[in-house]
Amino acid sequence: MNQTLNETLNPQLQSWVVSANAAGCDFPIQNLPFGRFRTQGDSGWRIGVAIGDQVLDLRKAGLTDHADMHRLMQATLQERQALRQALSEGLRMGSTRQSAWEPALLAQSAVELGLPCEVGDYTDFYVGIHHASEVGRQFRPDNPLLPNYKWVPIGYHGRASTLQASGSSFHRPMGQVKAPDAAQPVLAPCARLDIELELGIFIGQPNAQGVPVSIQDAEQHVFGITLFNDWSARDIQAWEYQPLGPFLSKNFASTVSPWMVTMEALEPFRQPFSRPEGDPDPLPYLDSVSNRTRGAIAVQMEVVLQTARMAREGHAGDVISRSSFAEAAYWTVAQLVTHHTVNGCALRAGDLLGSGTLSGPTLAQSGSLLELTTGGKNRITLSNGETRGFLEDGDTVVLRAYCEGAGARRIGFGECRGTVLPARTEG
Amino acid sequence: MNQTLNETLNPQLQSWVVSANAAGCDFPIQNLPFGRFRTQGDSGWRIGVAIGDQVLDLRKAGLTDHADMHRLMQATLQERQALRQALSEGLRMGSTRQSAWEPALLAQSAVELGLPCEVGDYTDFYVGIHHASEVGRQFRPDNPLLPNYKWVPIGYHGRASTLQASGSSFHRPMGQVKAPDAAQPVLAPCARLDIELELGIFIGQPNAQGVPVSIQDAEQHVFGITLFNDWSARDIQAWEYQPLGPFLSKNFASTVSPWMVTMEALEPFRQPFSRPEGDPDPLPYLDSVSNRTRGAIAVQMEVVLQTARMAREGHAGDVISRSSFAEAAYWTVAQLVTHHTVNGCALRAGDLLGSGTLSGPTLAQSGSLLELTTGGKNRITLSNGETRGFLEDGDTVVLRAYCEGAGARRIGFGECRGTVLPARTEG
Repeated sequence: MNQTLNETLNPQLQSWVVSANAAGCDFPIQNLPFGRFRTQGDSGWRIGVAIGDQVLDLRKAGLTDHADMHRLMQATLQERQALRQALSEGLRMGSTRQSAWEPALLAQSAVELGLPCEVGDYTDFYVGIHHASEVGRQFRPDNPLLPNYKWVPIGYHGRASTLQASGSSFHRPMGQVKAPDAAQPVLAPCARLDIELELGIFIGQPNAQGVPVSIQDAEQHVFGITLFNDWSARDIQAWEYQPLGPFLSKNFASTVSPWMVTMEALEPFRQPFSRPEGDPDPLPYLDSVSNRTRGAIAVQMEVVLQTARMAREGHAGDVISRSSFAEAAYWTVAQLVTHHTVNGCALRAGDLLGSGTLSGPTLAQSGSLLELTTGGKNRITLSNGETRGFLEDGDTVVLRAYCEGAGARRIGFGECRGTVLPARTEG
Repeated sequence: MNQTLNETLNPQLQSWVVSANAAGCDFPIQNLPFGRFRTQGDSGWRIGVAIGDQVLDLRKAGLTDHADMHRLMQATLQERQALRQALSEGLRMGSTRQSAWEPALLAQSAVELGLPCEVGDYTDFYVGIHHASEVGRQFRPDNPLLPNYKWVPIGYHGRASTLQASGSSFHRPMGQVKAPDAAQPVLAPCARLDIELELGIFIGQPNAQGVPVSIQDAEQHVFGITLFNDWSARDIQAWEYQPLGPFLSKNFASTVSPWMVTMEALEPFRQPFSRPEGDPDPLPYLDSVSNRTRGAIAVQMEVVLQTARMAREGHAGDVISRSSFAEAAYWTVAQLVTHHTVNGCALRAGDLLGSGTLSGPTLAQSGSLLELTTGGKNRITLSNGETRGFLEDGDTVVLRAYCEGAGARRIGFGECRGTVLPARTEG
């Protein structure tokens, strides 16, 4: 950790934005995540930084002369650190910037928070080994974890056009489903609608086509991390996914949280990364000392389910699962970037890499209902007595995450919220 | 076929651009495909229409007031037909526009032709049933054509960032490969580099997220069709593709031809579409009278291979395969659009749908070397005595296509050309 970073991460730092100093606040001055917002009448998105319950308009604060998030994300490491330093100093208790920056603050509750940037290409990985094993058991009982899993960071391309900002809703998808004993499929509303608890990794610095990114350089290409809910239609998936992978079972909607938590802010929460005893070492291109000593990131995550009845009754919902990135992931962020580019594939600023479902080793740490209910067979009972196998119309799912410990100030990711509307069956 | 279209398709029409009237010319006045070009010093792409060996600058000709291809592609059907009519009238022999438009013409050989538009999302389908059957035999000998194939237009998402304009080259990809008898994979240059002969379907009018496109309306959402070469690393693919589909085996490069041949220009080449006797009918949402009576498009295609030695010796290359869209495809363009959106997935102007490899029923109609050489086992011998299993460094592949017959003027698609460079092994 370099000196500049150490200073912006000092847990004693307080902000003149009072809400940022509250215990449990996701956005203390040590976090400083980037996102996009707009107010009524704005012609486009503005770049903001979350601080407490406020958002700082970066251009109004004089910290950029543009509102192009991709341009900001492509900045060099030095430029990014200088911007972080300027934000930290200006927002600090006693800063001479306070009076100049106060007019650049808006309440987060008073603005619309968008996707953190426009996404060119979205890739979904599959780093959750407990998820891969359990889903494998359900889709392929005789062959749960395929032989390539411990060698290849499995990934596939997803759809950018249907990424949604937190707070959006979507219609339950229609699709072809086929009962195991049916002679043929039918078009029907998805009956096994699920969530996937993921992190979203946003690329900053691009690599040119044909030029792989080494594992040593990989993290320099990552701008920040969000929460990500990759809604999944399990019945559609089971029928369509062979031989080319999931398609309509995934691309109807995916929800992204508004704030990109930077790699700089995550610095105190880095941990050694290792594989279980007896597993093969990764191939040399996916291995480095740094990846072993600090490849993991200790992010704690939780899934909240709020049914329509709960919403009507003013009940915020139940936490139905808690998991941890470090416990769930078989591959690191750096390994994903390096593997993705080893063939010369170009990543661009704003590209999104989903981690894959981050289930921990126990049932209570399931990142999907498919796992939590064992394919819908063991329904969960909620605190108000309702039960769920898969999602019902009107259900809202909220993902949350935070990092704490290691003598650092706790930081959070905000929330990733989406609501299921009934299927449109008229078509 | 409506009256306006009939008139622009009249095979007797001649252009004052003399090269457009030559027999065998891809771009007679009946074609009028759209693309993007630039010359040295241009700050951005311009919109052009191919006519003979020239390109007409649409803005210079006064036919648009912008250079935004997505905006042009989103035009209503009426606006598109009006533009086509204006182009046809202005380029016609004896038109009063000739002197005004001559300065808006540039030789195609004197400009750089780009991707026809920026691509947001790229989806690859798998409509070639002969391809699916033969590849299935090689990847899964006991289970070649999966049970969903005749029900689901199988597709998956690909990568937009590595789409290349015709004339580009790319490095042979590195990747994980595993010999069947090896205990573990190695990182190595792809040894089974292949082509995929496809058509590229470009979306014009978008649909909103959550709003499916019916099969009746589907073709209104298609702007035009190009050639498409979905280069494939078969050895990387075999090791990585389960369970989530192809990834690095495909996303290192795909090549798109420069000219979008519009649905209006393809009108004379529409044909009835039917399934083999005994096959199930498509589900109702994928079926319509129009799809049965005119769902197919008679596009003839060919694959040319020019080795490095041929290039040195001034040899244009050998045609190694000839195929036909109508014979190869098990699903129609309309069925792809409707299936893609049945779950509410949003398609945007400029989105690309690859058809999948368009192999005909015989070996000589193979759209990939995997099929043509039966997995590399039966090498083909070229006219200069060289042989090929898969592609070698320095090989150039050119796809070509045309429509003819039905009393109409022959039209062509131009060419889709790409060259294989050696792997970058230093990394």
